[in-house]
Amino acid sequence: MMQLPTHQTVVEAAERVRAHVVRTPVIRNEALDERAGARLFIKCENLQTTGSFKLRGASNRLLQIPEDERAAGVVAFSSGNHAQGVARAAKRLGMPALIVMPSDAPAIKIAGVKRDGGEVRLYDRERESREAIAEEEVERRGAVLVPSFDDPYIIAGQGSAGVEFAEQMDEAGTVLDHIICCAGGGGLINGLALGYDAKAKGTKVWAAEPEEHDDWRRSLKAGEVVTNAPGTRSICDAILTPAPGKLTWALGREQLTGGLAVSDAEIRQAMQLAFSELKLVVEPGGAAALACALFDLPDEARGKNVGVILSGGNVDPAQFAEIIGA
Amino acid sequence: MMQLPTHQTVVEAAERVRAHVVRTPVIRNEALDERAGARLFIKCENLQTTGSFKLRGASNRLLQIPEDERAAGVVAFSSGNHAQGVARAAKRLGMPALIVMPSDAPAIKIAGVKRDGGEVRLYDRERESREAIAEEEVERRGAVLVPSFDDPYIIAGQGSAGVEFAEQMDEAGTVLDHIICCAGGGGLINGLALGYDAKAKGTKVWAAEPEEHDDWRRSLKAGEVVTNAPGTRSICDAILTPAPGKLTWALGREQLTGGLAVSDAEIRQAMQLAFSELKLVVEPGGAAALACALFDLPDEARGKNVGVILSGGNVDPAQFAEIIGA
Repeated sequence: MMQLPTHQTVVEAAERVRAHVVRTPVIRNEALDERAGARLFIKCENLQTTGSFKLRGASNRLLQIPEDERAAGVVAFSSGNHAQGVARAAKRLGMPALIVMPSDAPAIKIAGVKRDGGEVRLYDRERESREAIAEEEVERRGAVLVPSFDDPYIIAGQGSAGVEFAEQMDEAGTVLDHIICCAGGGGLINGLALGYDAKAKGTKVWAAEPEEHDDWRRSLKAGEVVTNAPGTRSICDAILTPAPGKLTWALGREQLTGGLAVSDAEIRQAMQLAFSELKLVVEPGGAAALACALFDLPDEARGKNVGVILSGGNVDPAQFAEIIGA
Repeated sequence: MMQLPTHQTVVEAAERVRAHVVRTPVIRNEALDERAGARLFIKCENLQTTGSFKLRGASNRLLQIPEDERAAGVVAFSSGNHAQGVARAAKRLGMPALIVMPSDAPAIKIAGVKRDGGEVRLYDRERESREAIAEEEVERRGAVLVPSFDDPYIIAGQGSAGVEFAEQMDEAGTVLDHIICCAGGGGLINGLALGYDAKAKGTKVWAAEPEEHDDWRRSLKAGEVVTNAPGTRSICDAILTPAPGKLTWALGREQLTGGLAVSDAEIRQAMQLAFSELKLVVEPGGAAALACALFDLPDEARGKNVGVILSGGNVDPAQFAEIIGA
């Protein structure tokens, strides 16, 4: 197994990507605090360049590629946010990028990749293997495959959000008692836990997931990797991975306290509240942590300082209009 | 005439309200820079508590009221954002607040006032005088009238956004060549110009308005106050005042370089871009400055550092859905 990232490697990654990413704001809101029954510190990764945290990991990974090996480019597969992060990081480093995306990915995400000069190859989620397609393209091009989560540099790069969050809480003179973060593959949540140095600080980190896609919650409960039943669906397109990854599980079993889960209806309500109270556009998967803070907060977090990650804001206008207009 | 605010009084106001308001973030966006043809520094007052900058002026004004005179409360008239700012500031100081609002104000703004314990009295824009209603209530209650813009403490309080903006640009090591800010009554833009110390820095400040409601543009061109034709309409409900105020004109004729104006269609497009590129909810009036940066940028601002104020985000979900879904 590859070397696991540590607090130290995440701090180094944060230094490496600092000039490439936005230091996203942490906001407070009285109305949401009241509804949640806790003091929420909301970190806005939806305001990150490319509309999600994914630029962090992609930047850190691509910066590892020696300059004389960059011409062959990179290949990635992703439902959208990682796609955009890789495409933007590649553009900045002058590298070609091919992204393998499901044909039902939100149009806004596909358009985002193309606008950054990324080449898009669509595949059928039900009938094709994105891994096989990506592997074939990597060989044909001599390119570097950029995994979406199960890679130490990706995890460490996403963790730069945690290093920032720690700095921002230091500036505010407060320590978080809990952090709630969405978990798909688990790159962000585990990088974040390391970057924030959650264990050392006694901060409990909770995975936020859609109800029928709660592989992290069930895995953490079982003490071993549990896979979602095939065919489970949710509006949270960005975080629908079948199970924790190898590296992310090795980290997560040590770093994470447990899992929380919400229904699609609760996700929609969290998006509506982000619209009306925060004036922020959050995509379904990006609202999972806020929804858990509002509707599935652990008892021990009541009245406490709770960090909440809004992880992305790439949602098609028609879907957003439908959700807030409901 | 009352004493005009100065850079110094605005700096003092900024200190006074610092604990009461959010230091709103300044964001950058490559896609919008490219479209505008300038380097935009976007200050997000839509992320201010109550969803607009208005809490700044209201807090500064209410903090002037001696504690032993607070029981009788305050009265204000407003289409919505000032209403919410006054209601929230009053709530925090334990004062009753009556807000006189037009019956066609966005429901989200009326609800915001009520949620903060403000009493709302609706009036008919076409047939009743809000000034007369407010005056009558002030006398009956022995309350303090809180004007929405033509007051030195209100102007100075709004200007705290300019003091912050200057600090934030200092931290970024950059000076703004231009600032574009919406102008209704002119409290924000003039306070901002003073707070940023625009004249001393050689920063040009431009008023952003809807095309057929360009009283500031025409007044600045004429060198005297020009009033909008009655009955002009725009979707920018928050900035539809008939003419510059007394104090704000006395300041504006010295502080402002000129006016810019955009159509409702351009306002809508700016709101769509704020949604898709910035992941921010901006109301029509709050998008006026961004729309001017994108569609009516002065030639001399091309390629320069341009500050843009997103002044508010209180928009009804149905209207927002209609605009982004179009």
